[in-house]
Amino acid sequence: MNPVVIAVAITGSVPRKKDNPALPVSPSEQIESAHEAYEAGASLVHIHVRNHDESPSSSPEKFADVQDGVVKYCPGMIVQFSTGGRGRDPGLRGSALYLKPDMASLSTGSVNFPTIVYENHTTLVNDLASRMKHNAIRPEIEIFDLSHLHGARRLVESGLMDDRPHVQFVMGVENALPADERLLDLLLGELRHLLPKATWTAAGIGRHQATVMEWALRREADAVR
Amino acid sequence: MNPVVIAVAITGSVPRKKDNPALPVSPSEQIESAHEAYEAGASLVHIHVRNHDESPSSSPEKFADVQDGVVKYCPGMIVQFSTGGRGRDPGLRGSALYLKPDMASLSTGSVNFPTIVYENHTTLVNDLASRMKHNAIRPEIEIFDLSHLHGARRLVESGLMDDRPHVQFVMGVENALPADERLLDLLLGELRHLLPKATWTAAGIGRHQATVMEWALRREADAVR
Ligand SMILES: [Zn+2]
Ligand SMILES: [Zn+2]
Ligand SMILES: [Zn+2]
Ligand SMILES: [Zn+2]
Repeated sequence: MNPVVIAVAITGSVPRKKDNPALPVSPSEQIESAHEAYEAGASLVHIHVRNHDESPSSSPEKFADVQDGVVKYCPGMIVQFSTGGRGRDPGLRGSALYLKPDMASLSTGSVNFPTIVYENHTTLVNDLASRMKHNAIRPEIEIFDLSHLHGARRLVESGLMDDRPHVQFVMGVENALPADERLLDLLLGELRHLLPKATWTAAGIGRHQATVMEWALRREADAVR
Repeated sequence: MNPVVIAVAITGSVPRKKDNPALPVSPSEQIESAHEAYEAGASLVHIHVRNHDESPSSSPEKFADVQDGVVKYCPGMIVQFSTGGRGRDPGLRGSALYLKPDMASLSTGSVNFPTIVYENHTTLVNDLASRMKHNAIRPEIEIFDLSHLHGARRLVESGLMDDRPHVQFVMGVENALPADERLLDLLLGELRHLLPKATWTAAGIGRHQATVMEWALRREADAVR
């Protein structure tokens, strides 16, 4: 078996402390949570920041606080900022990228989510990709539907991204792609066709987490989450 | 070779008379255009209506005028209304379905288009499907991305649609799925897995029209357009 990167998404954009009192929300809670995961073997932390009322935030100050703490207490841990859209002003989703995290998430298309249309206009996608390129940030492409792989390929063709992005297949989001092993193989086949040098992982949402991680490990994914 | 339904989309939502002076825009022009296609062998007409300034309209009066003319001059021709979203108020996209056309188009997910996000909220999809069911209208499911097939499957599971919809794969729309023969096979495989009783066609947009029609015919599609 290949070595594998263990990634942790410590906060996300959806859960609240009322769902799980252990959810890390403040930067100091997030640094502590990342550190615990680091000591347990995780080597990549995916970061969302929150406002005082726990709603999603784009505050560069908060991103900087968490980044500083992880760099200080978790040497070598890969810092990945979310540029995801749930509950955030589209114009601010890239506002923390000047901080040059090692990686940032990048959605390359639109899709239905449980209660909203997850909108990623092509102009926004291109803007985020170009900020990442400018700051030498490696993108993690979030694949919620098949055309999002072609969106990633277009970024390579237009020179906004090199041909070795990290790609994450996200399965089990209601109204997007279900968690289905056949679908994972289909998406992987298309990835190898379009972006043969990409590294990849797959994430199952909620109750699908462990199942999708198993499928990914069996297929020698480069990372799990 | 199987018999095949020849469908014509006489107007669409994008072209204007300045692009092609022969574009049928008024109901009388549309009836004449449908009739010419009918005499040439077409048996299904896909209808968009337009305002006086040629912008997309949802006017039930205009839909009724075209429907009446086609029924009168083209006996047996299948009348299909568009419920597509480009340039139309989402709340009005289903407003002509009480006229009980034989078929209506139905998009089951969201995706990026050349300059917009083509938004089809799940609530809108469900509302359109339930109006079609109520009026005994057969849906033509428009597939712009893989998850839209799963959206169609969910309509069957929730009882809003029977398990024999007509499905159209739309290829070559910029920022959605490219016109690619491999992709057509992949989508067809998924269709046969999810909705084995569905009939299907594939439409290539613009310069891809003839190519995609060839691919569809070679795979014994039930219709071409
Ligand atoms: Zn995230
Ligand atoms: Zn600690
Ligand atoms: Zn149409
Ligand atoms: Zn005539």
